[in-house]
Amino acid sequence: MAHINLPEGFPGIRGPMMFRPETAKPLNELAEVLLRGPHTLSLGERELIATYVSARNDCNYCQTIHGAIAAHHLGGDEGLVRSVKLDFEQAEISEKMKALLAIAGKVQIGGKNVTFEDVARARELGATDLEIHDTVLIAAVFCMCTRYVDGLATWAPEDPDFYRQRAALVATHGYAAATFTANRVT
Amino acid sequence: MAHINLPEGFPGIRGPMMFRPETAKPLNELAEVLLRGPHTLSLGERELIATYVSARNDCNYCQTIHGAIAAHHLGGDEGLVRSVKLDFEQAEISEKMKALLAIAGKVQIGGKNVTFEDVARARELGATDLEIHDTVLIAAVFCMCTRYVDGLATWAPEDPDFYRQRAALVATHGYAAATFTANRVT
Repeated sequence: MAHINLPEGFPGIRGPMMFRPETAKPLNELAEVLLRGPHTLSLGERELIATYVSARNDCNYCQTIHGAIAAHHLGGDEGLVRSVKLDFEQAEISEKMKALLAIAGKVQIGGKNVTFEDVARARELGATDLEIHDTVLIAAVFCMCTRYVDGLATWAPEDPDFYRQRAALVATHGYAAATFTANRVT
Repeated sequence: MAHINLPEGFPGIRGPMMFRPETAKPLNELAEVLLRGPHTLSLGERELIATYVSARNDCNYCQTIHGAIAAHHLGGDEGLVRSVKLDFEQAEISEKMKALLAIAGKVQIGGKNVTFEDVARARELGATDLEIHDTVLIAAVFCMCTRYVDGLATWAPEDPDFYRQRAALVATHGYAAATFTANRVT
């Protein structure tokens, strides 16, 4: 049971977002810009960063929903998402993505852990300032989301199909619309 | 030196916000709603939560600027801000605020650390669901800000008067306006 009285039927971050639409609005706008806005990193790559950080944060809802969204954008390749969570250095992703995930992992522990060498590695592999900036901010945002979702003791469905269906909705309609309108769990 | 090429003269979070106004916009809107919107917690109380979490995060810029803003709203009482950072249970704040700061401290470590008893204590001392929600989200937001500011290796001025002047600007004009328009450090 959640720590506060949240609207029923909305798992994860959607419960607190329904409870407090004034803060949900900028939170969803931030997710839209970072994860779905025009970018040199693909939709799947950005969702992989979100998923990896959420897995390190041990946030069940965040890593499962963003893992499902990543897989959706990666042609349904759930195995690739699992391999990134388990050991991204061995996963079938670009060397640049490995360098960005290494930075994201440092940010998850704490921002001061990111070194000049971490950034130099990413830059040598072709990462731009914007890609490095957004990697740091995506990682930071998901350290916020985890604390928001877990700090209020929200619940998460267990059925993987729930997340696959949500992923398709988010991919089609975006974060803001998907938060409020569809796919209530009863 | 910052990890990426940020506009010069803008310390802390303002550098990355100048670099990426698309993400700065929702970040500032979130701060406006949480820290300056209509509320049953005072402006000073909400800034104290932000300051306390930033101090626990060891983020120099965040704890100094939000500490200065808290003091500004608390009639210039910098001693009270220091006492909250050092040992809030002994500080001259309400018992309800102590219970909320205890929750914020748990969120800083990780959301799963918040217990039923932590929330029951706050509720018995008069905290509402909205106050508990916003305490959790403010704490989560400042765990994001720290990682954003530190993960890009931004700089922070040392002069306490810089922060006092910024605090007065933010208190008067709000976060969004203060980010972009005034008080560049040259």
